[in-house]
Amino acid sequence: MMNLAILGFGTVGSGVAKVLAENAAEVAAGAGEEVRLKYIVDVRDFPDSPFAPLLVKDFAVVENDPEVGLVVETIGGCGVALTFTRRALQAGKHVVTSNKQLVAEHGVELLALAKEKGVNYFFEASVGGGIPLLRPLFNDLSANKILAMKGIVNGTTNYILTAMEQSGKELDEALKEAQALGYAEQNPDSDLDGTDAVRKACILADLAWGRELKPEKVPAEGIRGVALQDIRNAASTEGAIKLLCRLIRQEDGTVYAWVAPHFVPKTSMLAHVDSAFNAVVITGSAVGDVLFYGTGAGSIPTASAVVGDVVDAVRHKHAPRGIGWTDAPLTLGDPDTLPARWYIRSGDSWSITEAMPAGMLPQAQVRYRVLD
Amino acid sequence: MMNLAILGFGTVGSGVAKVLAENAAEVAAGAGEEVRLKYIVDVRDFPDSPFAPLLVKDFAVVENDPEVGLVVETIGGCGVALTFTRRALQAGKHVVTSNKQLVAEHGVELLALAKEKGVNYFFEASVGGGIPLLRPLFNDLSANKILAMKGIVNGTTNYILTAMEQSGKELDEALKEAQALGYAEQNPDSDLDGTDAVRKACILADLAWGRELKPEKVPAEGIRGVALQDIRNAASTEGAIKLLCRLIRQEDGTVYAWVAPHFVPKTSMLAHVDSAFNAVVITGSAVGDVLFYGTGAGSIPTASAVVGDVVDAVRHKHAPRGIGWTDAPLTLGDPDTLPARWYIRSGDSWSITEAMPAGMLPQAQVRYRVLD
Repeated sequence: MMNLAILGFGTVGSGVAKVLAENAAEVAAGAGEEVRLKYIVDVRDFPDSPFAPLLVKDFAVVENDPEVGLVVETIGGCGVALTFTRRALQAGKHVVTSNKQLVAEHGVELLALAKEKGVNYFFEASVGGGIPLLRPLFNDLSANKILAMKGIVNGTTNYILTAMEQSGKELDEALKEAQALGYAEQNPDSDLDGTDAVRKACILADLAWGRELKPEKVPAEGIRGVALQDIRNAASTEGAIKLLCRLIRQEDGTVYAWVAPHFVPKTSMLAHVDSAFNAVVITGSAVGDVLFYGTGAGSIPTASAVVGDVVDAVRHKHAPRGIGWTDAPLTLGDPDTLPARWYIRSGDSWSITEAMPAGMLPQAQVRYRVLD
Repeated sequence: MMNLAILGFGTVGSGVAKVLAENAAEVAAGAGEEVRLKYIVDVRDFPDSPFAPLLVKDFAVVENDPEVGLVVETIGGCGVALTFTRRALQAGKHVVTSNKQLVAEHGVELLALAKEKGVNYFFEASVGGGIPLLRPLFNDLSANKILAMKGIVNGTTNYILTAMEQSGKELDEALKEAQALGYAEQNPDSDLDGTDAVRKACILADLAWGRELKPEKVPAEGIRGVALQDIRNAASTEGAIKLLCRLIRQEDGTVYAWVAPHFVPKTSMLAHVDSAFNAVVITGSAVGDVLFYGTGAGSIPTASAVVGDVVDAVRHKHAPRGIGWTDAPLTLGDPDTLPARWYIRSGDSWSITEAMPAGMLPQAQVRYRVLD
């Protein structure tokens, strides 16, 4: 039997507790042994929760309990989440997380520590929420050189762009509605400015190419500049405006990474990914394009990925998977030097250009790459 | 170092040899050791192939070579493929296959034999070609109860339906062109009649629910009855005609399984899966709908999945994954009793009905379920 603790009883943490309870039989069958939730660590009280008896306030209880072999970190951010993850790994416990910021910024250190301690550090839920994506990338596609990845990895911005198209509203109004419905945070900066998408792009690149891509190295343009007009122009020619993360690796090893709104023709599956859904296309040297699509956020879908990681970590408790990347940086190229067709608009006048690098573009108020 | 042999040097077998050679570094990194192709078994001669020195005609050479720890079976069918697979497993060798007919018809026996011998029997390429699909199903989604699966799992028929829509040709002509281009076999019966899709549906059901679904239990309607008119009618209301495999599990455990053309509205991602691409939607109790999309056939894409299996089999050579299902049959319900909206046509007159079971439908020349 494997005992585990959940750190942080918020949206994801409570979903993990629920999924573990509801699908205990499936989890045990997958893991090869019973998986028991022993503690939930949170500074808050949850007197009405059925899980209240498991709540403790002090992480040291978990850290010092030799029965606890696995810790699920769903606190978020790089504060106590980093401290507790380090301490859990130091104590020889497997760690599973949904924390993309922590993995993107401290993955090298934490994966090295996990390796040193002979435990697993898994983070499937950090990109694409519930969608099986990272494990297929490093597992099923292991016969491939990964040539490129692109995707819609931020559900909030995709929800807003879809709402603008469907309801004819400008961004500010669509954002307010998304906030009212819980699809956007009260402080939506990291979503709207592309920061969240950058973190996910970095994790994809790290895993695919074995070297670190630091978030601050990735140029990001968010969706604040997207006008309803742009969305209507795209729709009028069978296209859609989508916030994409893009990763392209050239044969010499140079990687081009960026996050920006794109003009996506409807011939691409990505143009049909609406609302809060996510999708990522991975291009492998053997398989060609494969696409993974599903719910990129939410308590229970994200918990599906976290608990999937728990199962795999327990199954491999004596033979950790040894995924990871080095702190040797990827060699980066400037995306603006890559030729692309562009959607450009000034005032009401818009057009699609021939393929050219950004520097050759005419002056324009709005310029978004066309996904070819 | 793991030595392996490929049985059958046809489309898939030659692709596997090529991918192993070209991506040797990635394969070794994934597997944790070098993977070396030692033999290729085929009764034919390939004097011009760079792999000619590895060719042997007698399977016994492989069977009796203790250095060979893994066999890749890409012969197809249930004749020598079955015999050789049994003998390889008996000899304690891991087996990886792309042979959907063999897995669908003899999976119970072969997986039990693999378990008895402590080796892996993997078949990712048997459904969806290169798309990571089966491993995500039994691995990443292990925290879920699988509620339903549906998909486009036959590239030949999807190519023909797409060609009919795009070029305005009737089925017979589109089929001839597909044959000329290599997208359809000279004898296309198993594709056109849905037999191939049924086998893949059975493998999905077996894996998801742990009991055997026999191909002969699955009602199948192929695409021979689809007229250009039907495709145009669907397109006129933002839909497409797609051959889908459908699997639905009710809470009491009853499974409804069938293969038939469907009227798929463009609001579904499946409506946008064109040409020879495949896609499968898996509905999990926690994750909701996830979709996997990519190239469902072809030498190198299929080899990507086969070699991915090789990597996983080598990595787990001392701790086989223990996937499998029992020969206890699934409890099956009659799909015709499930209410659905229907596209019905008689002559030039067509309509979409309210939801009803098949038995309540008015007389009609053509009746296809609407995917809701």
